Amino acid sequence: MRIVFIGAGNVATNLAVAIRKSGHEVVQVYSRTEESAGELAHKTEAEAITRLDRIVADADIYFIAVKDDAIEEVLSQFPHNDVFLVHTAGSISMNMLRDYTDDYGVLYPLQTFSKDWLSDFTEIPLCIEANTDRNLNILGQIAEELSNNVCHIDTMQRLYLHVAAVFACNFTNFMFASAENILRNHDISFNVLKPLIRETVDKALVHSPSRSQSGPAVRGDREIIEKHLDLLAHSGKLQNLYKYVSESIMDFYNSAGEGE
Amino acid sequence: MRIVFIGAGNVATNLAVAIRKSGHEVVQVYSRTEESAGELAHKTEAEAITRLDRIVADADIYFIAVKDDAIEEVLSQFPHNDVFLVHTAGSISMNMLRDYTDDYGVLYPLQTFSKDWLSDFTEIPLCIEANTDRNLNILGQIAEELSNNVCHIDTMQRLYLHVAAVFACNFTNFMFASAENILRNHDISFNVLKPLIRETVDKALVHSPSRSQSGPAVRGDREIIEKHLDLLAHSGKLQNLYKYVSESIMDFYNSAGEGE
Repeated sequence: MRIVFIGAGNVATNLAVAIRKSGHEVVQVYSRTEESAGELAHKTEAEAITRLDRIVADADIYFIAVKDDAIEEVLSQFPHNDVFLVHTAGSISMNMLRDYTDDYGVLYPLQTFSKDWLSDFTEIPLCIEANTDRNLNILGQIAEELSNNVCHIDTMQRLYLHVAAVFACNFTNFMFASAENILRNHDISFNVLKPLIRETVDKALVHSPSRSQSGPAVRGDREIIEKHLDLLAHSGKLQNLYKYVSESIMDFYNSAGEGE
Repeated sequence: MRIVFIGAGNVATNLAVAIRKSGHEVVQVYSRTEESAGELAHKTEAEAITRLDRIVADADIYFIAVKDDAIEEVLSQFPHNDVFLVHTAGSISMNMLRDYTDDYGVLYPLQTFSKDWLSDFTEIPLCIEANTDRNLNILGQIAEELSNNVCHIDTMQRLYLHVAAVFACNFTNFMFASAENILRNHDISFNVLKPLIRETVDKALVHSPSRSQSGPAVRGDREIIEKHLDLLAHSGKLQNLYKYVSESIMDFYNSAGEGE
């Protein structure tokens, strides 16, 4: 298939290179700056363009992989209205594309990407959605050539998947950073915690995390909780975070089954 | 060396079996119930006892590996006051042992244990502390036969290590459980998130977690945060947790360097 990429950032770079590798032709790469358009065009043997009105009319798919708040602008200046438009954003509804063409869809790769480190797509979940069965088939074919982990997920599910990823990844990383911060202030290497972290994560991923919960809060061990709050007394922020998350845990496990 | 174990729970079982395997003699296992004393005694070829006054006087080390709130009771009934007493608790000061003997210490294995799954000690951090250099040497010798990861950590550091472990493990697991909960309510398998979780954890452990932070909060992307809060509107608990942790992240990264 002949593919056009709008965008040359982290997602565009990783997706375009993977698609090129799987045998498709990347016809053009658009970016606002010549440098980044050129860089990705070079990697994918495509033409680099910096003006949207130069986009060819005869490609099979046009991937819009720009920042969320730039999608609308790209669409409003898009020169063709009878092409297959696909965005790659976790938190943007598919229907945003509805007013601009009859064929549209979403391919959302659930991974953090970096331009400088090209990811292996084999295990990356590719969440796809399209406005017709025909378009879903086309998108599904491309996705399955890239990954063993293709899921059909509608807009609403995708939005919640993104929220869940914030909890499971961004918030988790912040819990690690808080631990690192506490240890640093007491001259203990973060390395000491690593085996326990690996064990905890392995357990949560093999069994269900809600069934793997351990620690003072789920045990209702208020004595330890008070002791820990005292230890954190000189840092109001960490103390409040400890208190809040502990209360959330007690609350969650005492009202299990109430749903979200 | 001749070792006595007070306690036959998860920590006692794993530690006693590992110590027996490394060639020492487990002389006795005390537990309140005959069943659990017998079970661990059987695994370590020791004598099972259910009365503290039966504890022999001539062992080299007495490990007290009972629940935190049972340590004091064990000590008050302990029949010998000239022996080497070692507790295994993360959140109990070493000096709790001071009034009961002249030789004492702590060996705190930083791992979650289960009776039914005997852990390989090779990589488990063993945090040791003792009241004299001589006792620290004895404890250090035993510890190094079990693990490549022995650290000298004083009581205050151990207490903070325990607090840090609550953040890095218990709270992290709760973030996974919250994500699982959101996904379950929208018919999405938690499996979809697993590759991203693995990537996030690998990144945090290889680089520093405070340098690996990503997501809407650290970017200051209030538009996405508001969108996510709207999506969680029907679940006050998750909405509040999302809000609180996001604010903590913004706060932490805007006042970096202020210390704990």
